[in-house]
Amino acid sequence: MANKSNNVEAITNMEVDFAQWYTDVVKKAELIDYSSVKGCMILRPYGYAIWEIIQNYLDKIFKQTNHENVYMPIFIPESLLQKEKDHVEGFAPEVAFVTHGGNEELTERLCVRPTSETLFCEHYSNIIQSHRDLPKLYNQWCNVVRWEKTTRPFLRTTEFLWQEGHTVHATLEEAEEETLKMLNIYSDFFENYLAIPVIKGKKTEKEKFSGAQSTYTIESLMHDGKALQSATSHNLGDHFAKAFDIQYTDKNNKLQYCYQTSWGITTRSIGAIIMVHGDNNGLVLPPKIAPIQVIIIPIASHKEGVLEKAKEISEKIENFARVKLDSSNKSPGWKFSEYEMKGVPIRLEIGPKDIEKNKAVLVRRDNGEKIEISLDNLEEEIKALLQKIQENLYNNALSLLQEKTYNATTLNEFEKIIKEKSGFIKAMWCGDKNCEDKIKELTTATSRCMPFNQEKISDKCVCCGNKANHMVYWAKAY
Amino acid sequence: MANKSNNVEAITNMEVDFAQWYTDVVKKAELIDYSSVKGCMILRPYGYAIWEIIQNYLDKIFKQTNHENVYMPIFIPESLLQKEKDHVEGFAPEVAFVTHGGNEELTERLCVRPTSETLFCEHYSNIIQSHRDLPKLYNQWCNVVRWEKTTRPFLRTTEFLWQEGHTVHATLEEAEEETLKMLNIYSDFFENYLAIPVIKGKKTEKEKFSGAQSTYTIESLMHDGKALQSATSHNLGDHFAKAFDIQYTDKNNKLQYCYQTSWGITTRSIGAIIMVHGDNNGLVLPPKIAPIQVIIIPIASHKEGVLEKAKEISEKIENFARVKLDSSNKSPGWKFSEYEMKGVPIRLEIGPKDIEKNKAVLVRRDNGEKIEISLDNLEEEIKALLQKIQENLYNNALSLLQEKTYNATTLNEFEKIIKEKSGFIKAMWCGDKNCEDKIKELTTATSRCMPFNQEKISDKCVCCGNKANHMVYWAKAY
Repeated sequence: MANKSNNVEAITNMEVDFAQWYTDVVKKAELIDYSSVKGCMILRPYGYAIWEIIQNYLDKIFKQTNHENVYMPIFIPESLLQKEKDHVEGFAPEVAFVTHGGNEELTERLCVRPTSETLFCEHYSNIIQSHRDLPKLYNQWCNVVRWEKTTRPFLRTTEFLWQEGHTVHATLEEAEEETLKMLNIYSDFFENYLAIPVIKGKKTEKEKFSGAQSTYTIESLMHDGKALQSATSHNLGDHFAKAFDIQYTDKNNKLQYCYQTSWGITTRSIGAIIMVHGDNNGLVLPPKIAPIQVIIIPIASHKEGVLEKAKEISEKIENFARVKLDSSNKSPGWKFSEYEMKGVPIRLEIGPKDIEKNKAVLVRRDNGEKIEISLDNLEEEIKALLQKIQENLYNNALSLLQEKTYNATTLNEFEKIIKEKSGFIKAMWCGDKNCEDKIKELTTATSRCMPFNQEKISDKCVCCGNKANHMVYWAKAY
Repeated sequence: MANKSNNVEAITNMEVDFAQWYTDVVKKAELIDYSSVKGCMILRPYGYAIWEIIQNYLDKIFKQTNHENVYMPIFIPESLLQKEKDHVEGFAPEVAFVTHGGNEELTERLCVRPTSETLFCEHYSNIIQSHRDLPKLYNQWCNVVRWEKTTRPFLRTTEFLWQEGHTVHATLEEAEEETLKMLNIYSDFFENYLAIPVIKGKKTEKEKFSGAQSTYTIESLMHDGKALQSATSHNLGDHFAKAFDIQYTDKNNKLQYCYQTSWGITTRSIGAIIMVHGDNNGLVLPPKIAPIQVIIIPIASHKEGVLEKAKEISEKIENFARVKLDSSNKSPGWKFSEYEMKGVPIRLEIGPKDIEKNKAVLVRRDNGEKIEISLDNLEEEIKALLQKIQENLYNNALSLLQEKTYNATTLNEFEKIIKEKSGFIKAMWCGDKNCEDKIKELTTATSRCMPFNQEKISDKCVCCGNKANHMVYWAKAY
């Protein structure tokens, strides 16, 4: 059941119980509520508003890079999902099946889409004939369902919201170019909008997407030292094109198989924001992604002129930032806690004495600093401060990432770091899946990616000691 | 299977076979494609772009009227759907059921949401306590599934996209006010954006939403004289509040049941655009809703300076209208047909002779008129013409509606109109469901609504001859 109380209560200390702290924050900041549907969450207005800002930003970028939005059915006939062998193996255990429509039993079970490669492929095989039809650069915003045993708001839910891009190209090279272009769009978005530094790299064979030729990823590090796979971009090669017969006639009138990509980002990114920036007072939102960037709290609002002034300031700020004036009759102290919990970047306090001096007080959510400003400089002060907070959050997250990244050259070292600290471990790997399996078994850490920025930590695989050319980021992961 | 040809072929004449004409248009204008999933359609880029414009406009209005977006789970436990008796009776026959997740059989079947009243109610009962929590004005954009026996793109599909508003109020009066406010937003949208005149009114008891106290509707008339229910707004009274125990303490600290509304508009509205404005050359889009408002087609584009000029013009138009330059090497004639099929409101032709004279030719999609304009007046000419086309389409649709609206005072007259003509029939009704049933049985026409603008056609029910106070719009409907 939902918490019916409107009082801001203390939340669990994040150093004491990070998982409970997380659950407290998503509930008390009113991002989500639970429903009676197992593993599904309700995105409440404040949580959904963050997703809308993410959507608006990315959708604009996708369109600027010539992608078009479409909408595919939510259902996939079971036989269609089975067409690409690796793909179905990866997804079958997670599929929810519709077996009855109205009062009738269906002749073929329908999968509730866990991802839509197969539907896009069927459509592409219908509409692509010639090299003149290429590339096709499609995207869709939708819900998907994956049957999960244990769930956590935003991080792992039975249903989640995402976008899935699906593109078709004439050559493998073009597909690779697209795959990396979209990965870069994701990493720019994480770094510049969510203020979260990421490690960019390639997944190992073991960790790649079911059906892909290669998977690229951005990995970020949460406050508790666990990694979060934050977005992925797949070069599908011609695997799906061969299974679905997606061919085009080239300039020499020869039939050729197409090459494809797919890439996605989900509501999980909201989980990353919470776990990277949050603190013991609740959520901390980077200004660029905050539904409310400035909260105005009138002090002694019963006194003449205070509410009027607050309103006047609010109307001014509206022109350049997302602002809210809370003129309810709750106490200023209650409001302070409430908007701290909600992670609003700037609190603006305005009372009779401030008005007398033509001033206001700004309080930063990220570090609590109080700044007195002249009301004549409202726009430049607030804009500059939002920028400063955005940068500070990124720098803090980068420091965290750097502090919590360790090198390991032996398995002993590796195990010790996992046990005593928590974070990314950089270690060499021979390329053998057995070593990945063994490391996971011993430490629960998984290979997160082979970063594009390779370093030579040593000559030997951290696990088997054989010659190793790959430097891998490892971590316990969400 | 999809039509692989890129050639613009003739479509079925709408006077000969309206249903086939419709199917031809949705396919050849590339609005949709079929998939292997029964009753589901693929919204292609051009079709989805129309939906995005609809969404953007309505979402802005919803937010201006203080509604907040949320997202509820796609699944509803069967027991939850059953809580409101009338509601489940109406929807149970249309529900798709998930019975298996991964390899496990579920202990309780999950409904794929046909509509989300029950989920909203469960949530509301958790978060509403006090009169200070009211009103709650929520909306969601999502997909819903209704198991349909016969389907038609946009008009009736197993899955469709829509928005569903769900609000909670302290009093029945406030709920009624909200219900009508949203109905008016829909009718303004239909008339001013889609250029479709509507009849606003109340549904009869027989035709109202399952679980509602009263349902209001906007009804529009298609080119073939059939009616289309275009959007509905329901006053739910306290029916759901009682079933789901949604109560608040009022100012006197007394527990009271809440009053609710719900309202929705779907991708069906795209079907209305097609069937009201389309002609034998294909789609005709009202400028306000057209993804491309101006298509630029260069003539003799191999000649020096033509493409450059076309590009220059395109860049100018970009500042005030949605424009596309088609510089592909297909023939101008092919392009003319293609963008006529796609219903682009204005075609701009520019060739060497036009450039010499500093002119361009504009061709209206709605009536084929050609207008020579000076390139110096590009912005004002195009803006004015878009406005003119919008108005002309509305006026044409209004004439159609007026021409095809008939009065009937006897059942004989009623039957004759249905047989020989097609359209709305205005006739008096006594209020008895038996008469509605009988009329439907005899004529296949249903009561569309009791319009707000009541007229007294006669004193007697068109069916039983008893005293009648209600004037009703009747029609065959999609």
